[in-house]
Amino acid sequence: MNVQAKPAAVTTGPIAGSRKVYAGAPGRPDIAVPFREIDLHPSAGEPPLRLYDTSGPYTDPAQPIDLDAGAPAVREAWIAARGFAAATPRAIRPEDNGHVGTDKLVPLCPAPRVLREGRAGQLVTQLEFARAGIITEEMIYVAHRENLGRAGPLPGAAERRADGEDFGAALPEFVTAEFVRAEIAAGRAIIPANINHPELEPVIIGRNFLVKINANIGNSAVTSSAAEEVEKMVWAIRWGADTVMDLSTGRNIHNIRSWILRNAPVPIGTVPIYQALEKVGGDPDKLDWEVFKDTLIEQAEQGVDYFTIHAGVRLRHVPLTAKRVTGIVSRGGSIMARWCLAHHRESFLYERFDEICDIMRRHDVSFSLGDGLRPGSIADANDAAQFAELETLGELTKVAWDKGCQVMIEGPGHVPMHKIKVNMDKQLRECGEAPFYTLGPLTTDIAPGYDHITSAIGAAMIGWFGTAMLCYVTPKEHLGLPNRDDVKTGVITYRIAAHAADLAKGHPSAKLRDDAISRARFEFRWEDQFNLGLDPDTARQFHDETLPKEAHKVAHFCSMCGPKFCSMKITQDIRADAERMAGMQQMSETFRAAGSALYVPEPAEAKPAA
Amino acid sequence: MNVQAKPAAVTTGPIAGSRKVYAGAPGRPDIAVPFREIDLHPSAGEPPLRLYDTSGPYTDPAQPIDLDAGAPAVREAWIAARGFAAATPRAIRPEDNGHVGTDKLVPLCPAPRVLREGRAGQLVTQLEFARAGIITEEMIYVAHRENLGRAGPLPGAAERRADGEDFGAALPEFVTAEFVRAEIAAGRAIIPANINHPELEPVIIGRNFLVKINANIGNSAVTSSAAEEVEKMVWAIRWGADTVMDLSTGRNIHNIRSWILRNAPVPIGTVPIYQALEKVGGDPDKLDWEVFKDTLIEQAEQGVDYFTIHAGVRLRHVPLTAKRVTGIVSRGGSIMARWCLAHHRESFLYERFDEICDIMRRHDVSFSLGDGLRPGSIADANDAAQFAELETLGELTKVAWDKGCQVMIEGPGHVPMHKIKVNMDKQLRECGEAPFYTLGPLTTDIAPGYDHITSAIGAAMIGWFGTAMLCYVTPKEHLGLPNRDDVKTGVITYRIAAHAADLAKGHPSAKLRDDAISRARFEFRWEDQFNLGLDPDTARQFHDETLPKEAHKVAHFCSMCGPKFCSMKITQDIRADAERMAGMQQMSETFRAAGSALYVPEPAEAKPAA
Repeated sequence: MNVQAKPAAVTTGPIAGSRKVYAGAPGRPDIAVPFREIDLHPSAGEPPLRLYDTSGPYTDPAQPIDLDAGAPAVREAWIAARGFAAATPRAIRPEDNGHVGTDKLVPLCPAPRVLREGRAGQLVTQLEFARAGIITEEMIYVAHRENLGRAGPLPGAAERRADGEDFGAALPEFVTAEFVRAEIAAGRAIIPANINHPELEPVIIGRNFLVKINANIGNSAVTSSAAEEVEKMVWAIRWGADTVMDLSTGRNIHNIRSWILRNAPVPIGTVPIYQALEKVGGDPDKLDWEVFKDTLIEQAEQGVDYFTIHAGVRLRHVPLTAKRVTGIVSRGGSIMARWCLAHHRESFLYERFDEICDIMRRHDVSFSLGDGLRPGSIADANDAAQFAELETLGELTKVAWDKGCQVMIEGPGHVPMHKIKVNMDKQLRECGEAPFYTLGPLTTDIAPGYDHITSAIGAAMIGWFGTAMLCYVTPKEHLGLPNRDDVKTGVITYRIAAHAADLAKGHPSAKLRDDAISRARFEFRWEDQFNLGLDPDTARQFHDETLPKEAHKVAHFCSMCGPKFCSMKITQDIRADAERMAGMQQMSETFRAAGSALYVPEPAEAKPAA
Repeated sequence: MNVQAKPAAVTTGPIAGSRKVYAGAPGRPDIAVPFREIDLHPSAGEPPLRLYDTSGPYTDPAQPIDLDAGAPAVREAWIAARGFAAATPRAIRPEDNGHVGTDKLVPLCPAPRVLREGRAGQLVTQLEFARAGIITEEMIYVAHRENLGRAGPLPGAAERRADGEDFGAALPEFVTAEFVRAEIAAGRAIIPANINHPELEPVIIGRNFLVKINANIGNSAVTSSAAEEVEKMVWAIRWGADTVMDLSTGRNIHNIRSWILRNAPVPIGTVPIYQALEKVGGDPDKLDWEVFKDTLIEQAEQGVDYFTIHAGVRLRHVPLTAKRVTGIVSRGGSIMARWCLAHHRESFLYERFDEICDIMRRHDVSFSLGDGLRPGSIADANDAAQFAELETLGELTKVAWDKGCQVMIEGPGHVPMHKIKVNMDKQLRECGEAPFYTLGPLTTDIAPGYDHITSAIGAAMIGWFGTAMLCYVTPKEHLGLPNRDDVKTGVITYRIAAHAADLAKGHPSAKLRDDAISRARFEFRWEDQFNLGLDPDTARQFHDETLPKEAHKVAHFCSMCGPKFCSMKITQDIRADAERMAGMQQMSETFRAAGSALYVPEPAEAKPAA
């Protein structure tokens, strides 16, 4: 495989059983939000089920996919209308691409884009607009998206909300653009949306909205190629990644990043210290503010939507990690700790935080304040180092907010179940309710090869408690680089965790999908059951391993019990009988109240089945 | 494949990186409990790590495996000493094997066994012995097993216990046989141990012990063969199933069961109503007490250790399911509901419960009181039908206890996270703290193909809250029959859930394994990391996909970050530096207390690294 080739092809085509639809926001037909709709079997007598859709143009057969041209620039007109000055791009330098030789240089994505930057005194960030009382197109978009394009609250929304336990979150029955604005103004939510990423389909991250998930992609010093990276992004969003972090290092990363960004309908996050380190030859001791600043500008101009900045790793915190079982496990955290100790100085990220804010504000790059001291084992969970850093992140959150920047906070890591909630509570308290963005957490260390599962347990719980975005973990965590199947498994697993959290919080519409699939299950609508699931392809394949015939797609039994024993079939028979006995339900309750007398229906009350 | 052949071969050989050891209980060298020990790399400077082991003789190369002879009868001498009368076995009838033709008849397992039965006035069940103040060999065995063969509490046991949240459980620092006796006497724990299952390595199920898991095996009306079933049991216990339920139906089930039982070192559970239904041609309406009673006796004499009995499905409960989205999803529940409605009569299981107890007591078959009305969807969780049945199960628990029988209670099913804890609390209250045994619960319905994960989330949580045993769910749930890989995935996933629960409860030794693997991870002892995990084979395979060379097994980096970026490597460098700076930890804390002044270590305090 020629790693220098531009990406040749990505996965396209609809997700099985669904079709792409776009719904204009009320009064704003120019704001067309994508959804997936699943048509159900006619016997269901139900309208199509509409689902949130992260997959971008790649699942829409009507959209021409041309990686050279980039994804549709859905935000272009909105941004253009904001009067940003055109800016002169920073010149690309050999070190941006790891000093790759010209013969091995991946070309830049040729999609033409105007570089814009915000100025002082101008409203630039979504936070600044929100505070000024201005509802941006992005806010309208995400409101409409969270509502799945509905015009008002669904019947039963209040009941479903009341049925949940939201731990102090305040999920609205219906998301208005004004609600979005107010949440952003309060710092409780962010829309990561670089003004140089017009291809973005905006997404909101906050605990009063649907729980989001992030997938990491990236090459590594050992393996990977350029073409794989763009496809990895497309593949991850196909299965439901709301944002994608590009953790690539090494050669060609600047140019590969241009391909990813120009073709990304989701927010792209990065960890700029990785590239800064490359620029100084991989020696943390040689890092300084100038090379870091240069990297921030480089990536911000490319359109990266959020930066992980490990500014909470202070010199004073490092000794707190000395007795840990697994020390510092965050790459960025260990790099900065190394730097602090080598120079016996406070972190330049902490000391220059004001300037970092200024650069990020200029392009509306959101902060993802990194948890460089997150625990890397059950033994180190919730220790002094972790919480000292969290307190510093709280302090920095307020600085960033003062500077007009959007902020979310990264969290652990490895935490046993009983120590998860205190993480959430402390984060809300220390960081003024800024959105929490956690990696897992893994609830045990003993299952390498299955850490998508050890962490899904923690992710579902912390999502329920209030975490706004869950960073996925793949089965290869701790062992190797995820392949295509691992990425899909990680994304689906985290969609499970996020949805389980939405359900438990009492999200006003999350349960509709569960109910739809449960009805399909009860009525033996196999195709509907596959299509309504998170992964129709796998569900169908598993079913067909035992019962491959098409006739079995309408069979009133499955291979688990076989035709004689199917409980659902028996229940349907029971129900038909039961309906003949009028008043049965009521009488049952009467008898329950009265005590232990047996209930025997009166034949006189019987009526024919409808 | 010839389905009539006796099982030809099962999986044998040690689990990678470990070896079987047996440790005699203190003062009872005849009670030799099996464990697995993992030798660590010499650089660790650590003794071998000992693990609980469910895998029976099959992982011990020193044990001859002869399926005709059955597994070693470790309980034979203990049972023989209790003075049970030899009994005349019930004659096998054609319907026991589904009227299979003689040409297709699987032979009985030829392993010779004496049929024993308890009499009135004699101590038979573990509960009866416990109440009489008598500590049985089984109690000594499980105490020693729970302690991993240690002679006394481990250093730090009290601290680890205090660090957990046990929701009112009372995990001892060290499990004495007397503690086991008292827990069984109180009904809070059971040792399912039919007096006709001498091959059993006893296991205790109760919330003040390690959380256990069950794997289901079984053929079905559509596929499966005899040979597969024994191997499925061996395969499931290899990966950590503490008990196995045989849910087979159809032809040859009596004779296949004889092979499973004679070769099973774990408790075997069944659902007798399945076979009873076979005996009446599959028509629930034709069931009656006589055929059910006959089946109980048949299976109890074979040595089944626990029976799922759906005696809580009463006539009056059935109408409560009428408005459900997924009706009755338990096979046993639907069969009994069907019977009640068809006859307009109270369930014979409920009406004959006393007689059922008498039969089960005679062989010390434990009750697993079935939740025939468990919810089959998020929509139906915690509804009136489910809880009405649970109240009935509480009533029956007291009856069974009065009869001297051991009891556990089955639980849901499908429950969103925020409705899980009330299930546990209500079960403890209604059922007098009898052990809870739950299926998952699944925390969302939207992921067919991934229900091991949707349910592991719920299983870990309910295990934490106090559930004693978790029934596994495989990826094929709702879709098809699990194959070998699915069974392994289900078992490993549930070992994760059970261990995460043990950790969160503050089990006094659970964390030792996490700490051992975390140290191995931090020190780049890759082989140790693989071997200490739940599935060494998969961990190794995943690692080798990216870094196949043997040299990489000792590499101080992995493929995820590559050699330049490894955070753990950097941390080790940091630590070496930090150790040069004496008093750093202490000074850091001083400065933290003092406020924001920077910490700069004093060169004068530096000392050489050790």
